Amino acid sequence: MASSPTRTDPAPAEAGGEPLAILCGGGAFPLAVAHAARRAGRSVQIFALRGHADPGVAAFPHVWIGLGQYGKLKAELRRRGCRDVVFIGNVLRPRLRDIKLDWQTVRLLPRIVGMLRGGDNHLLSNIGRLFERDGFRLLGAHEVAPDILVPAGRLGRKAPDRAMLDDIEIGRRALTTMGPLDIGQGVVVINRHVVAVEAAEGTDLMLRRCAELRENGRVRAPTASGVLVKVPKIDQDRRFDLPSLGVLTVEGVARAGLAGIAVEAGGVIAADLPAIIAAADAAGLFVYGFEPAGAT
Amino acid sequence: MASSPTRTDPAPAEAGGEPLAILCGGGAFPLAVAHAARRAGRSVQIFALRGHADPGVAAFPHVWIGLGQYGKLKAELRRRGCRDVVFIGNVLRPRLRDIKLDWQTVRLLPRIVGMLRGGDNHLLSNIGRLFERDGFRLLGAHEVAPDILVPAGRLGRKAPDRAMLDDIEIGRRALTTMGPLDIGQGVVVINRHVVAVEAAEGTDLMLRRCAELRENGRVRAPTASGVLVKVPKIDQDRRFDLPSLGVLTVEGVARAGLAGIAVEAGGVIAADLPAIIAAADAAGLFVYGFEPAGAT
Repeated sequence: MASSPTRTDPAPAEAGGEPLAILCGGGAFPLAVAHAARRAGRSVQIFALRGHADPGVAAFPHVWIGLGQYGKLKAELRRRGCRDVVFIGNVLRPRLRDIKLDWQTVRLLPRIVGMLRGGDNHLLSNIGRLFERDGFRLLGAHEVAPDILVPAGRLGRKAPDRAMLDDIEIGRRALTTMGPLDIGQGVVVINRHVVAVEAAEGTDLMLRRCAELRENGRVRAPTASGVLVKVPKIDQDRRFDLPSLGVLTVEGVARAGLAGIAVEAGGVIAADLPAIIAAADAAGLFVYGFEPAGAT
Repeated sequence: MASSPTRTDPAPAEAGGEPLAILCGGGAFPLAVAHAARRAGRSVQIFALRGHADPGVAAFPHVWIGLGQYGKLKAELRRRGCRDVVFIGNVLRPRLRDIKLDWQTVRLLPRIVGMLRGGDNHLLSNIGRLFERDGFRLLGAHEVAPDILVPAGRLGRKAPDRAMLDDIEIGRRALTTMGPLDIGQGVVVINRHVVAVEAAEGTDLMLRRCAELRENGRVRAPTASGVLVKVPKIDQDRRFDLPSLGVLTVEGVARAGLAGIAVEAGGVIAADLPAIIAAADAAGLFVYGFEPAGAT
């Protein structure tokens, strides 16, 4: 049944073959991934989450889907001949009364309620299993658009010095320890001291807090010291939720008076890396991709 | 030499015998501890850190000490016949140019610079060793004023329900895991999800962030759900820096829309527990002391 669409429709065959379905949450990444996938020669079909996806997705063939409409989504995916699905972009935790449930979703409700009670890893992995049970193949954005992954090494003009490399290592270790707790993906380390941990607030708000900690004297290290460190969570299903870097991140790091940004190479996505590097160079910040733990 | 003061002074003998030295940082706790120690029958001598201690400490026999004046502090302690020292209250990380160093401190500089590069545990334990090497005995505030420790059990009218006890347990485990990282002492858990981790910003700012996360929709759980959990750090030297609870904490928890506050019994201090419980009862929040891990 998973392979027999319930309606007959125009065959999806076109340049790029079977279209890639991109299920779009909020933010700039869904569009970046759609463009990159098209550049890589695939035809793209957008499934835009109502209330979350950027209206700019309308530049691609698209359909809008509500959060409680798994039945509609499944039918539309089959109707358009999509088997490969990429889920990209942020989705704020919904208030239940804002969701209109279709019948397929109602049947899944007991399972969904269980998901919503856990942390993000739990939620996303379970959504993944729902899709696969119905015969779809979930891919990570990096699999269809590998050029959005931040690579290893020094990426701009500045390189981290010895003290900054120490801070990077301390941040990396702290994030590795916290990974199993399903807590955020970022920390700020200044002079070997973890001064901020990212949880539900996200990287931008954490950086704003660090700027305030300097202003109110709780952190008194000189500016141009300290590092934002980001890694994917240890047991994170990379098909769903790789952490991201943007020009806003660079601006936040500059305002927080840090020396630079370090991310796990291949584990963090950037919609427009050249723009990020240009912004970092202009602000005198380093951008550095370190090898994952265990790699040599 | 440690037992021979360099000046002859009025003998410290008075009601309470050898006076207790309270080295006072910022906040309300130093005064609460001074009053509690005096109630317990000890005479009290305040050593107030300039730029940090509350001017209210002047109600006790006192002397002001600058942060770089270890030599002066040592001499004054000996002159007043103090051997027992309690170090209480917060001390913001100083900017080096704000510190005037005396000669004794200059000799210790290499060691102090090393301390300032580490996390708080490291810093405080090393300061402890300095004092002990010079013949003083460092006590915890809870040893001279045990009634400031938050006890076990339900402390106000409200008790945590099953879901809240789950959140408490998740917070307790997260904090246990993070302890060795020398990261804060508090988390907020809502519906089994760690939404905020306290690092250098302190509990009040973390709670303000949780209120904002609800306002901007990043956290959509209904109000009166979720818990603030506080424990002392695993390897924390309790003589220096037990986490604290105050009426401000209760107000922050109420504004963040949480259901209550849970702390490790015997591991968190409160300057005025009756006032805290009254505020929590008025706001419909629970206050709960849970047994330390490993206790039965």
